[in-house]
Amino acid sequence: MFDLNSYLLSKRKIINEYIERILNSSSESTPIVSAMKYSLMAGGKRLRPILCMSAAEAVGEKSDIILPVACALEMIHTYSLIHDDLPSMDNDNMRRGKPTSHINFDESTAILAGDALLTLAFKILSSSEIKNNDYKNMLKISGIIADAAGYKGMIEGQMLDISSEGKVLSIEELGKMHYLKTGALIEASIYSGAIIGGGTNEQVESLRIYAGKIGLAFQVADDILNVDGDPEVMGKAVGSDINRNKSTYPSVIGLEKSKKIAEDLVYSALKAIDTFDNKAEPLRLIARYIIERDK
Amino acid sequence: MFDLNSYLLSKRKIINEYIERILNSSSESTPIVSAMKYSLMAGGKRLRPILCMSAAEAVGEKSDIILPVACALEMIHTYSLIHDDLPSMDNDNMRRGKPTSHINFDESTAILAGDALLTLAFKILSSSEIKNNDYKNMLKISGIIADAAGYKGMIEGQMLDISSEGKVLSIEELGKMHYLKTGALIEASIYSGAIIGGGTNEQVESLRIYAGKIGLAFQVADDILNVDGDPEVMGKAVGSDINRNKSTYPSVIGLEKSKKIAEDLVYSALKAIDTFDNKAEPLRLIARYIIERDK
Repeated sequence: MFDLNSYLLSKRKIINEYIERILNSSSESTPIVSAMKYSLMAGGKRLRPILCMSAAEAVGEKSDIILPVACALEMIHTYSLIHDDLPSMDNDNMRRGKPTSHINFDESTAILAGDALLTLAFKILSSSEIKNNDYKNMLKISGIIADAAGYKGMIEGQMLDISSEGKVLSIEELGKMHYLKTGALIEASIYSGAIIGGGTNEQVESLRIYAGKIGLAFQVADDILNVDGDPEVMGKAVGSDINRNKSTYPSVIGLEKSKKIAEDLVYSALKAIDTFDNKAEPLRLIARYIIERDK
Repeated sequence: MFDLNSYLLSKRKIINEYIERILNSSSESTPIVSAMKYSLMAGGKRLRPILCMSAAEAVGEKSDIILPVACALEMIHTYSLIHDDLPSMDNDNMRRGKPTSHINFDESTAILAGDALLTLAFKILSSSEIKNNDYKNMLKISGIIADAAGYKGMIEGQMLDISSEGKVLSIEELGKMHYLKTGALIEASIYSGAIIGGGTNEQVESLRIYAGKIGLAFQVADDILNVDGDPEVMGKAVGSDINRNKSTYPSVIGLEKSKKIAEDLVYSALKAIDTFDNKAEPLRLIARYIIERDK
């Protein structure tokens, strides 16, 4: 039987090794490289790169071909966490059980480490050794990822998040903010894997639907964990959303309804890929894992 | 006779129109778009995009083919100014005669506007409509630009700049810092224009030497202006480097010697491209303009 835990562990190992190799390839280790490594190697779940690789596998491609793209996605995710944690944004002191970048280094280093990770991601996405010289599709996914991370995607999500502090959002506003802030990059991760993996248009489209559903499910689950989770396991404070007066799924529609929504989203995600063969098994189990995880 | 001023004006017009078109293409204008526009349209010299276009012309290509790349370079430059001006970095209140982004908006918006411009630059660099489907070279220059802007280039230059405040640098240390902070992206601008313009290897190499020389000359001239310039014309405070205890060419080797170095660099730059025909005339005049400008 397919074991999700060993699958996630083995993928994380491959991803971590690739990221470390890239950051160790400079001849000298500079303070900025230390700061980039500090946040990148802080023990993240590696959800985006794993989804990217699993999507390539689901359409029949070996996932090592997409490894650089997968790691670029993790760098973009990590940059966004570093900047979101800054004093002028969420002002968070702890992340993944460790002091945040601006606490461990200083604010200017944290800003520049984020900038550097974002830039390095696009450097990797332009490395032409990827995928049998399929330059056209590499440019295509680079654009998709830039859109998802940019001012119409993740950055707009963060703008909405900041401006909605202290306001009560409707469930639609909350959904839009979450889609932009988290869902768009998760969608781009799966989409990129499906395209570079050589999926048919139909497969790519089904995976995009799957991605939209689990992206939102992920955020609903995060909101639930923020109310219901164990701070020891999560490595950050629980209840911080309430303290900060942020609207969350539980605060807007209650905990039980939120759990029901997360369940329904996973059900729809699974339905979107029900014609895929057993190579999509990791994606199926990850969909469940996303709402059942404890951090 | 070739008139540099009309040339620069007409190029700035084309560049500004392209940038405005991109930023107005969203259906709704959001606060983040306003902040991006505010800094992008603050009346910069457009040196990097013009150099990129002039390099394409110097190797015989029409420069409109490189316009998107040129504008992407200006976005990267503008993002770096926004982040450099932040309170935790240079803490500057004025830029190009206007309040800096974090003063006019707020700090989180300024950070995110910078992030958004950097991301949009790579979105544009991945737009595959550029240059007759020359996907391979588009990926190549995207990587060159990411390297120049990244943790081994511009970002490392900013790290060195911050860490050297209050220290007296040697002329070599100063040169290295300036190359990373300013020269690398100027070099990448010219290099990109030469490659996408279809230059021969020999032409590309000559233009790279030209670029290295004027990149440094530009920074030496900036240091001189910071001592000798007119704050009304420059739109920012003069003497701020001294107030901040920053090493500059004038402070390390004196004003006269600095002017001599700038002259010598321009001479070497011109020598590097002396076999080019009159299509390189803009580059020749720009080299002189760089050290003779008053802002």
